[in-house]
Amino acid sequence: MKNVYDNKTFFELYKNHRSESVNRNNLIENPIMKSLLPNLTDKCVLDLGCGDGKFDRFLIENGARCVVGVDISKNMIADAKKNNKERCFDYYVLDMEKLDTFEGEYDVIVSSLAFHYVKDFDKLLKDIYNLLTEDGILIFSQESPFKTAIIFDGKEQKNKIEIDGKIYYLLSDYQTEGERKVIWNKTEVTKYHRTYASLVNSLINNNFKIVKVLDSYASEEAIKENENYKKENDRPIFTFFIAKKNSL
Amino acid sequence: MKNVYDNKTFFELYKNHRSESVNRNNLIENPIMKSLLPNLTDKCVLDLGCGDGKFDRFLIENGARCVVGVDISKNMIADAKKNNKERCFDYYVLDMEKLDTFEGEYDVIVSSLAFHYVKDFDKLLKDIYNLLTEDGILIFSQESPFKTAIIFDGKEQKNKIEIDGKIYYLLSDYQTEGERKVIWNKTEVTKYHRTYASLVNSLINNNFKIVKVLDSYASEEAIKENENYKKENDRPIFTFFIAKKNSL
Repeated sequence: MKNVYDNKTFFELYKNHRSESVNRNNLIENPIMKSLLPNLTDKCVLDLGCGDGKFDRFLIENGARCVVGVDISKNMIADAKKNNKERCFDYYVLDMEKLDTFEGEYDVIVSSLAFHYVKDFDKLLKDIYNLLTEDGILIFSQESPFKTAIIFDGKEQKNKIEIDGKIYYLLSDYQTEGERKVIWNKTEVTKYHRTYASLVNSLINNNFKIVKVLDSYASEEAIKENENYKKENDRPIFTFFIAKKNSL
Repeated sequence: MKNVYDNKTFFELYKNHRSESVNRNNLIENPIMKSLLPNLTDKCVLDLGCGDGKFDRFLIENGARCVVGVDISKNMIADAKKNNKERCFDYYVLDMEKLDTFEGEYDVIVSSLAFHYVKDFDKLLKDIYNLLTEDGILIFSQESPFKTAIIFDGKEQKNKIEIDGKIYYLLSDYQTEGERKVIWNKTEVTKYHRTYASLVNSLINNNFKIVKVLDSYASEEAIKENENYKKENDRPIFTFFIAKKNSL
């Protein structure tokens, strides 16, 4: 997995973007992710791609006994350690693609908007399986397959078009899974496109029982903050999965 | 469920269309559907929306002990009875939305490109559950959520656009589930749009275990017959599910 978050320009632009209160992470992804959490009382949670650890504080405030966060970025882990100093938090710099080198047993594994950076989803799921307790739960969000589909080939990243007063999203290359290079925060970022079918099949084949799939939607509150988010409901930008470890 | 297949104009145009050997049913849907079938030896199969029964003959030729076909259209059932006269076949005119009035026990239930006509998918799944043996299998194809998403409001059904030499499919209204009226064979046809997430969740909530999800793709053979089908791989037109009844 490429680590753009320790690239200085990218990290500064990213932090600026995230510090604005009106963004899709705060207004769309985060509320849904929170709503999907199970009862966390006394649970030990692993957060994959924990970033600055803000979500981890929420997990502790909602009953979790401990939260371990991992992130590929030293910058992010430094921020997380600064934000969450209590003994119930623990942080490690780690590339999610090397999760097989990590040890522990967790009741719940969460991940926000990070899995689309991972090349080998099946390996990731195998590693997650091994880190979960019996009946452990995996909850993750990622960019939706609609969002990751188009191969831009270095061209302008146009993804909407207006025809006769109606806005349509553009879709192509859906069945061509794999690497997608996009420009984000003036930096080339590598993501991986996987179809809905592929996400579902990988979970099943790696012994997870899917509990629920959810597409992101903009709530009334989100639309009040930014009217453009209304269009998000015409084509979801994020997808969420809840899956349970199938005890063998 | 509205029955357009007993509308004379529609039925004639539909039969003309299906009698051409180069169409998406023959070259894309049918080969995939066949490849997804389990071992049928001695199995009793129910075919929902059986049409003219051609697929049912394939089922018998591949080991099924008996095939019962139901279809809302009298025209279709008349054709099926003509095509399949042997005692291993049995046909009934029946609206799939009234499947709770139907009796029997089937090892396998199949359905080709019919479920997108059904308004209440959860009721349909409940009825299917009751008609399956323990560990019975449901295999169905339907128009993909990409295909059914756009609300056309009586406007021209444009679904592709060329930008800088690349063809994109148009997508909108994805999260607005429900009725879609489209013009097909000079007739207004009512379909129902459901998202991938919704299809998966309905199966889970109605006690099915998803075995596999598959998007349609055009094989090399299909592309040899019609080069335009290459574009099908940029946005699947059909979606397939294999699901197993969860014994309680």
